[in-house]
Amino acid sequence: MKGIAQCAEGDPINHYLMIKSVTRSVASNNKPFLTIMLQDVTGEIEAKLWDATSEDEQVFLAETIVKVEGEITTFRNKKQLKIRSIRPITDADPVKKSDLIPTAPLAVQDMMEHINQCIFEIQNPKLQRITRALVKKHQEAFFEYPAAVRNHHEYLSGLAFHVVSMLKLAQALAELYPELDLDLLYSGIILHDMGKVIELSGPTATSYTLEGKLLGHISIMSNEIAETARELEIDGEEVVVLQHLILSHHSKGEWGSPKPPLLREAEVLHMIDNFDAKLNMMNRALENTKPGDFTEKLFAMDQRAFYKPLFERKVSPISSDV
Amino acid sequence: MKGIAQCAEGDPINHYLMIKSVTRSVASNNKPFLTIMLQDVTGEIEAKLWDATSEDEQVFLAETIVKVEGEITTFRNKKQLKIRSIRPITDADPVKKSDLIPTAPLAVQDMMEHINQCIFEIQNPKLQRITRALVKKHQEAFFEYPAAVRNHHEYLSGLAFHVVSMLKLAQALAELYPELDLDLLYSGIILHDMGKVIELSGPTATSYTLEGKLLGHISIMSNEIAETARELEIDGEEVVVLQHLILSHHSKGEWGSPKPPLLREAEVLHMIDNFDAKLNMMNRALENTKPGDFTEKLFAMDQRAFYKPLFERKVSPISSDV
Amino acid sequence: MKGIAQCAEGDPINHYLMIKSVTRSVASNNKPFLTIMLQDVTGEIEAKLWDATSEDEQVFLAETIVKVEGEITTFRNKKQLKIRSIRPITDADPVKKSDLIPTAPLAVQDMMEHINQCIFEIQNPKLQRITRALVKKHQEAFFEYPAAVRNHHEYLSGLAFHVVSMLKLAQALAELYPELDLDLLYSGIILHDMGKVIELSGPTATSYTLEGKLLGHISIMSNEIAETARELEIDGEEVVVLQHLILSHHSKGEWGSPKPPLLREAEVLHMIDNFDAKLNMMNRALENTKPGDFTEKLFAMDQRAFYKPLFERKVSPISSDV
Amino acid sequence: MKGIAQCAEGDPINHYLMIKSVTRSVASNNKPFLTIMLQDVTGEIEAKLWDATSEDEQVFLAETIVKVEGEITTFRNKKQLKIRSIRPITDADPVKKSDLIPTAPLAVQDMMEHINQCIFEIQNPKLQRITRALVKKHQEAFFEYPAAVRNHHEYLSGLAFHVVSMLKLAQALAELYPELDLDLLYSGIILHDMGKVIELSGPTATSYTLEGKLLGHISIMSNEIAETARELEIDGEEVVVLQHLILSHHSKGEWGSPKPPLLREAEVLHMIDNFDAKLNMMNRALENTKPGDFTEKLFAMDQRAFYKPLFERKVSPISSDV
Amino acid sequence: MKGIAQCAEGDPINHYLMIKSVTRSVASNNKPFLTIMLQDVTGEIEAKLWDATSEDEQVFLAETIVKVEGEITTFRNKKQLKIRSIRPITDADPVKKSDLIPTAPLAVQDMMEHINQCIFEIQNPKLQRITRALVKKHQEAFFEYPAAVRNHHEYLSGLAFHVVSMLKLAQALAELYPELDLDLLYSGIILHDMGKVIELSGPTATSYTLEGKLLGHISIMSNEIAETARELEIDGEEVVVLQHLILSHHSKGEWGSPKPPLLREAEVLHMIDNFDAKLNMMNRALENTKPGDFTEKLFAMDQRAFYKPLFERKVSPISSDV
Amino acid sequence: MKGIAQCAEGDPINHYLMIKSVTRSVASNNKPFLTIMLQDVTGEIEAKLWDATSEDEQVFLAETIVKVEGEITTFRNKKQLKIRSIRPITDADPVKKSDLIPTAPLAVQDMMEHINQCIFEIQNPKLQRITRALVKKHQEAFFEYPAAVRNHHEYLSGLAFHVVSMLKLAQALAELYPELDLDLLYSGIILHDMGKVIELSGPTATSYTLEGKLLGHISIMSNEIAETARELEIDGEEVVVLQHLILSHHSKGEWGSPKPPLLREAEVLHMIDNFDAKLNMMNRALENTKPGDFTEKLFAMDQRAFYKPLFERKVSPISSDV
Repeated sequence: MKGIAQCAEGDPINHYLMIKSVTRSVASNNKPFLTIMLQDVTGEIEAKLWDATSEDEQVFLAETIVKVEGEITTFRNKKQLKIRSIRPITDADPVKKSDLIPTAPLAVQDMMEHINQCIFEIQNPKLQRITRALVKKHQEAFFEYPAAVRNHHEYLSGLAFHVVSMLKLAQALAELYPELDLDLLYSGIILHDMGKVIELSGPTATSYTLEGKLLGHISIMSNEIAETARELEIDGEEVVVLQHLILSHHSKGEWGSPKPPLLREAEVLHMIDNFDAKLNMMNRALENTKPGDFTEKLFAMDQRAFYKPLFERKVSPISSDV
Repeated sequence: MKGIAQCAEGDPINHYLMIKSVTRSVASNNKPFLTIMLQDVTGEIEAKLWDATSEDEQVFLAETIVKVEGEITTFRNKKQLKIRSIRPITDADPVKKSDLIPTAPLAVQDMMEHINQCIFEIQNPKLQRITRALVKKHQEAFFEYPAAVRNHHEYLSGLAFHVVSMLKLAQALAELYPELDLDLLYSGIILHDMGKVIELSGPTATSYTLEGKLLGHISIMSNEIAETARELEIDGEEVVVLQHLILSHHSKGEWGSPKPPLLREAEVLHMIDNFDAKLNMMNRALENTKPGDFTEKLFAMDQRAFYKPLFERKVSPISSDV
Repeated sequence: MKGIAQCAEGDPINHYLMIKSVTRSVASNNKPFLTIMLQDVTGEIEAKLWDATSEDEQVFLAETIVKVEGEITTFRNKKQLKIRSIRPITDADPVKKSDLIPTAPLAVQDMMEHINQCIFEIQNPKLQRITRALVKKHQEAFFEYPAAVRNHHEYLSGLAFHVVSMLKLAQALAELYPELDLDLLYSGIILHDMGKVIELSGPTATSYTLEGKLLGHISIMSNEIAETARELEIDGEEVVVLQHLILSHHSKGEWGSPKPPLLREAEVLHMIDNFDAKLNMMNRALENTKPGDFTEKLFAMDQRAFYKPLFERKVSPISSDV
Repeated sequence: MKGIAQCAEGDPINHYLMIKSVTRSVASNNKPFLTIMLQDVTGEIEAKLWDATSEDEQVFLAETIVKVEGEITTFRNKKQLKIRSIRPITDADPVKKSDLIPTAPLAVQDMMEHINQCIFEIQNPKLQRITRALVKKHQEAFFEYPAAVRNHHEYLSGLAFHVVSMLKLAQALAELYPELDLDLLYSGIILHDMGKVIELSGPTATSYTLEGKLLGHISIMSNEIAETARELEIDGEEVVVLQHLILSHHSKGEWGSPKPPLLREAEVLHMIDNFDAKLNMMNRALENTKPGDFTEKLFAMDQRAFYKPLFERKVSPISSDV
Repeated sequence: MKGIAQCAEGDPINHYLMIKSVTRSVASNNKPFLTIMLQDVTGEIEAKLWDATSEDEQVFLAETIVKVEGEITTFRNKKQLKIRSIRPITDADPVKKSDLIPTAPLAVQDMMEHINQCIFEIQNPKLQRITRALVKKHQEAFFEYPAAVRNHHEYLSGLAFHVVSMLKLAQALAELYPELDLDLLYSGIILHDMGKVIELSGPTATSYTLEGKLLGHISIMSNEIAETARELEIDGEEVVVLQHLILSHHSKGEWGSPKPPLLREAEVLHMIDNFDAKLNMMNRALENTKPGDFTEKLFAMDQRAFYKPLFERKVSPISSDV
Repeated sequence: MKGIAQCAEGDPINHYLMIKSVTRSVASNNKPFLTIMLQDVTGEIEAKLWDATSEDEQVFLAETIVKVEGEITTFRNKKQLKIRSIRPITDADPVKKSDLIPTAPLAVQDMMEHINQCIFEIQNPKLQRITRALVKKHQEAFFEYPAAVRNHHEYLSGLAFHVVSMLKLAQALAELYPELDLDLLYSGIILHDMGKVIELSGPTATSYTLEGKLLGHISIMSNEIAETARELEIDGEEVVVLQHLILSHHSKGEWGSPKPPLLREAEVLHMIDNFDAKLNMMNRALENTKPGDFTEKLFAMDQRAFYKPLFERKVSPISSDV
């Protein structure tokens, strides 16, 4: 059976889906209705439940799994699910939550190993110890959280997956540009978004915490580094420089960084972060687009719609022995 | 004798002055010359020492006190001092450094008492304890440093004077707008620029430290609050809110704040800071301007020149029993 | 009985309310319905009258008082009133218009006295005479109009109340910063928004007049000052300076001021105006917000939502004998 | 003899010239020198008078006519006049001020007639009377002043010449776009910059007056219209609309207009003004440029340098009977 | 019978209209409905067809002509057509497509002659040959296409009509400003938007082609000129200059021009284009507005609404013998 | 002997250097002097030749090789060469031009091979043929030109070196992000800046051509692709897409791109270009900076100065078998 994001207009629906969020409204006939966001591992879709009873309102809550029958329609150029029947699952239904939550394409264990190997390769002992201590402190959340509430890597373990992609990218760049200090890049990459485990409420149904709203993950993480350094009795330029990498990784004041990048590796960290996030956004949009069509407009990419050409390279990439 | 900032074009000079900074250049006749910034308590003036010998370069260093004879001229609409003779002082000269360094118009002792009284009046024990601990920790520098390297309150104890003015303003506002939380305002005002004691190099000949350049006083102070709270074993919303007041007091990302003000008192703190700094800049420029003239252009006020009217109120302000 | 703005979702409604505005639309069932904005002194709420008859359309007009029964619901995070019955009042109903129109928290008589006292204290006779003449000329409207159509002080006598708050603020500032010329500030404050009595259509159901749209209250008032000075045969710098204070009080060209502030008192007038307007907006939003929650997004404050902390100062402000 | 603006590097100079402005500075040899801006009808050039005596400073003042010998050199890509000898003229010298002041290419009498004819053709009596009264009130200055201190039409009678060009342009446009109201355009064009006779100090050696700096010609003229209408006892929409045309003719707040154009004719007035001013700037720069070269950078045209092609149309324009 | 754009609220409708576009949606009662944009030569109006059958969806397609009965209503301040009955026409109905498509107010033949005459008058043979060849190459589309998808001249032959208006304007300007090179202006005007015949899909139901989206009409036309010059074996500065006129005619990078205008005629081309487009937009909006009212907000004119005064010039324009 | 860019203040100079550019000015003593920019392979330095004779002016021209004796001084924080003696070389001097011109760190032959290998690996025959044809057409200049007049890769063969770095980077990225179409990236990278061989005047003493100024390398290259495709009789989406990659590679209108990137590979091309150019700028500045210092301000990186830390990773990068 096709996942919910792959279904096209007119497709019949007979799926297990998880309720991501619900909003109650009153229709023009004065009866309440529910706007339900439903998801499976492939993505999400909106549905309206008209003439909702008060029982409906008590049953169909966020994170509930439901069996839905209906059909895909479109409204204002967006797909919608037209519900014919919807019911919460019972013990008899062969489905569990983890079947329906989108998750990173790498296993947590593999990501942990990759990150630990990179920490091991940090030669500067101060950077290595601070990085290791903070990964250990936030270990559980760090490997579960999404990288963002929306836009990019917004799935289970998305944060760790984003970090692993960036680490690989940093290593490749350091081979081409050997003047780059990989110690700084590895530490900076691993820690740059770790403040999100405090900024965000949790791995699913994610929202912003009070600390997230009032301080933001950038200031939070700068504090964490200072505190960890103090606890480990580490001082010296490395601590200030590492804090600077975190503070400057959004590049500009209007994007949330109180300082612009003032080290080569801070500038590179920003570009790597940007590159991986943008590719992730474009890839997901292009996956759901047919050759010859444009994607929907991507909010975080200046509202651009991207074109998927009709032609395509057969085997990509080529071997690396050019 | 008139202070150096009060002298007009054509005035003869026979003053003790302190060298604030020196730059060496080579003139079109291929001989080196020194550009010397000289100051007394009233302000500063630039002078050129042409055909400088290498002995001159070794003697005329920053923070040296000199006796200068010469005359005031103007160059590109700015006053200059034309040096006829210049020599470093000897023990025989009846002048000492503190005679020549501009300083706040209130005594340090009085400012300390005012600030301590305000801390005493903070009712919330968490806010009071954090504020008191940080004032104690940085006490010496806090009462010596300028509020900025240039633009406003850039004199000895300028930081404390700026804080005291703001505290008085906050108190007056709270009487008119009783919904304001004076605890938050008092704590926020006292701590908002305290990070400058780490951002800047010292009370005189002030420049930016590495931490200042890479982190900035806003992030530095947010860290200090977090650390102090931890040491005092204080937690709760007050800590996050107080950090937010510091982080947001420049109001916008492009002005260095990673978060905009999201509490009423954070917005008010920003407005009070702005008000006191702008009045300080305008007042100093207008003091050196004759009625009927415009001041020089003020860089930090969008390059505006301000007009000083010919008419003036005799007795200002009026008594407060309206 | 709770005012309309204090009612929460689910509360039953049985209130006298005044219709502020009505819009007619056609529903998806092809029948007309009315969107009615209803108000009492505490604020306003939207209601839909479905299947409106043409009689309904003739009866339910702006400024009509009605008796409504129904219930509070929410639609897209905003409260709505769901109408069960609605009827215009008869002579038998014990309610009159002034019971339902939100109005300033000070009596008109008190505001008049305060403003007259301030005019009396203006020492400069030119400024005093122009100010007094203009208050007299527009007296009636000046004490009835709101300060704006929306955003801040948008209630009966809001304009005068805003002026009185600003006068008090100016007096407090002048005590702390005695270099300020209170004559200029008092005149500028009293006149700065007086052009609104020509820009706006009236004290209730307020809209923009043709002069308001094509000239704006800033240019209108600059004209009025010039005309008044001519009638009183006053000339001299005071007239130009006072016009400048009005022209520049929005501070920037993109905010409607053809000149930026070029006098200290012009800059201070802008800051006082800004301060009082922003506090008014934040206070009203925070009054309707529970501790621990954020307000709705405030349009005129860069769409920020403000946080109301859980902790609060008990007695505020403190006495002024610090 | 070639005019001063037509001379090229290396050309010998033996000209009568008028001093436009003088600035005194001190050279690196500690001797004063004068920077003198010299002009004739073709334009202006800068010269340095080294080792200036105090007698020189008293003789070579703005608006003095001098006889200069020397040569054209260049400094930082700008032509300069290298002075060999300079002396003020005596009665024996056959030159007078008007020979050296750049002036509009049309006679004042002809411009007056053209403007009066246009006023005569205004059909709306209210617009006609206000326009006529204001031209009469400011007649002398209106036909003498430049249109601006720099950038465009900055020569004697430049303001009137700019107005006449715009009137001709408006007439041509109204033939192509007959829906345009020529009454409004004629009134608006004649009055749009008339406030400059108050904003600027005079026809030569022009600077800004206090009213110019604090109010600006746009607000000044809006006042003048209101006052004139009152004196003539004219009211009605025409007065407000005419004021709006003046207030909006700079089009945007950041360019000095408190209202954007909200009438078709207001928008057209802005475009005509813009068109004539820009053509004037480009023409003057291209006149001093050889085919195949770029002009100097034009400040008021976004610092663009314009290219003068090698090819050129022989006879331009063509006859109008297409 | 009044055209559809002239009908007011409440007017009965019994018109032949052409379907311009159709969108299918699902209503709150779960039944599909069609949003149909209907047009005749006077303009367009939106209508809803509720409870649409699948037969309806197959019959009511874009470019179908229908007979509609109903009435004009308003929804959110916009007129709507409330359908009582709608049917596709049969052979018996006395109406054909060209009766219902809005078209330029000049005959194609006349526009062709005007453009050819202008080409004939281009004296520079290189510019003339390139222009003639490109008009010939794209002749059919050039005289059929609209000038834009929306905002201005968006009707049959709108592109050619816009070009003819601009040619007349250029000729009038060249008489007033004889330094303008009419050859360049004529060539530039005729070619400036010709790339739209490739950028857009066709004369009706117009959308963007892939080339339009990825390259844009500006780059397309620059290519076409280069290619034509090569085919005609023309080189020299004229080719580069003509390409520059096309590339720069949107004036700024953020408006789509890779180069700003760097020739006088390039700047003038931009201003003429702007003038004609803006007048077209304002005229159409004002035609549908009553004296004393404001137009709807015009998107492409910074969302301004324009005022139509109550007074009006009787005979406009005046004869040209001033 | 140290290269000219490695010399520090006070170092004696006895070097062969090439004159990069010369400007003549007149000093305050009224004698001409030359400002000479001198270079060797390590970089460039400014020198003044005071009291220049007319013979000097004829001898010391751009691209002349000279023997200079003197000493390094500083002026306004920039190093200068103080000339004691300077003479053009004779046949006896053991130096030739190529010894003194900065050049790419890879041999032209190696870069050619790398680029040809990448062209060979383009699987799409249309993209491959267009790319190959254009490299062949512009071969000589393509391997000689700098990548820019200033800021990055501004040395002999800088353009080809920049392309080779980007090709390697693209290959590394394609291994990590296999969804990228390497055909498009390879073609886009090789052609993206090739228009500079027409935009710029030549490999040394580089300035902008008329085509460069009026069209720019982006539009020039889009034309070249269209023309080449036509000559090779290639059509299809590939041509449009390849032109789009060139047109959009500066990303934004205000940076010179008439279209923003609308294909994933267009966005990636922009990011790769940006990455390589920025690293080149930072690396060159950091090479001339001591640990613990900041670089000079880099114009093309928002005027930031970059910090070079005191600590450094010993061996970088690590092996790639993580």
